[in-house]
Amino acid sequence: MTLEYDGAGFCGWQLQAGGRTVQGVLERAIGKATGTASRVAGASRTDAGVHAVGQVAHVDTASELAPEQFLKAVNHWLPKDVSVLDCREAPEGFHARFSATSKLYRYGILRSAVRRPLREARAVRVWRALDVDAMAECAALLVGEHDFSSFASEHTEARSNVRRVTRCELIEDADELHLMIEANGFLYNMVRIIAGTLLAVGRSRMTPAAFRQAIDRRSRRAAGPTAAARGLTLLRVRYAEDPRSGTFLIG
Amino acid sequence: MTLEYDGAGFCGWQLQAGGRTVQGVLERAIGKATGTASRVAGASRTDAGVHAVGQVAHVDTASELAPEQFLKAVNHWLPKDVSVLDCREAPEGFHARFSATSKLYRYGILRSAVRRPLREARAVRVWRALDVDAMAECAALLVGEHDFSSFASEHTEARSNVRRVTRCELIEDADELHLMIEANGFLYNMVRIIAGTLLAVGRSRMTPAAFRQAIDRRSRRAAGPTAAARGLTLLRVRYAEDPRSGTFLIG
Repeated sequence: MTLEYDGAGFCGWQLQAGGRTVQGVLERAIGKATGTASRVAGASRTDAGVHAVGQVAHVDTASELAPEQFLKAVNHWLPKDVSVLDCREAPEGFHARFSATSKLYRYGILRSAVRRPLREARAVRVWRALDVDAMAECAALLVGEHDFSSFASEHTEARSNVRRVTRCELIEDADELHLMIEANGFLYNMVRIIAGTLLAVGRSRMTPAAFRQAIDRRSRRAAGPTAAARGLTLLRVRYAEDPRSGTFLIG
Repeated sequence: MTLEYDGAGFCGWQLQAGGRTVQGVLERAIGKATGTASRVAGASRTDAGVHAVGQVAHVDTASELAPEQFLKAVNHWLPKDVSVLDCREAPEGFHARFSATSKLYRYGILRSAVRRPLREARAVRVWRALDVDAMAECAALLVGEHDFSSFASEHTEARSNVRRVTRCELIEDADELHLMIEANGFLYNMVRIIAGTLLAVGRSRMTPAAFRQAIDRRSRRAAGPTAAARGLTLLRVRYAEDPRSGTFLIG
């Protein structure tokens, strides 16, 4: 399933006792639609407040509903702030998280001296001028295979902090800046810490030289603050193509 | 003042007892900022649920705050869903509503078979294919000076129902259609009835010939339904240029 959701009303993706989560409402809707309890696995365990237009999740189900019927039935039971955009049968062995080869995120930065009520649901607002050239220069340094320990929350569970970033660039779109970052995997809070550190560069609180050193230091304290969750949107998850069916390729 | 607001949380622009309105929260904020009660006048009395990125309002005030200080002070007291984007001293005799020469609205139509949680706050969703060519043909018929009685709620207060539409077109932007309509004035619910009638044409529930007849009939019953408020956004209000100062020209 490919999913879109407005993160504002959720305590993140992952199931938790007492908190409204995307996984929780999705499992409940699948239960209503199929009549049996099911566990779903998501490609990305997005944090509270983080949005998605292309989250991918899979479910093992004995349901005999065809994918199109399954989509309609699950959407019928889902609340307004989450929707299944697409649904298909997965090849044997497919896992939404472990089969993923890359994920693409957008972090939105709105440049405006005044509050913008219709523009701040999916972006953080910066009221002073930003040095976009310096930010772009630093963003480009992250492309390639690096140890991203400086850009991970200290309670990360990963065994290795090495990830391969295939895209990291800023796109200017009038008064909005889109930080587009794609990698084969992300550490806990990695995009938000990268966004916060690039914003520190943009505000001239950190030099590009210090940013370069921050990568090498492999310490969370070398990087900038974690930017707000609402600026972050999971855009797309990619999978290796299954030579037999082609269905692994999503997005 | 130029104002942006998210209409979802308001019972429209106009002050009313017991309802949260944009005028109400703005007058309250100006009262807090200046220390004296003030009445504001808005260019457009937008309905409940209608958004604005370029509403214009004026206030007569004895406050000696410079426009930039006034803007900051008022924004400090405004709630999150409304913001003063710009503020300047108006020429003698300026009236936000009566001096306006034209207003531009956008009506958003999202074409998607499934719910789109991040895309439906400012658009209505249509799940079946639309005949966009027929809609565009009908939209073009509205340009010019016409009696728009067919496209006005019956409890309209206007003395004349003749308005001059200077722009009425559909812009396709991937899966979204933007109906852009500019006129020297609008009757009550006029844009939403035009949008609803064009949607009836797009869904082949009304022919272009019937649309043409609907204009001539000058009867609300000849047109289609009133489209939902959340699709409508006031984009811009124009004023004649003041030859002395140029400051009448806004937007």
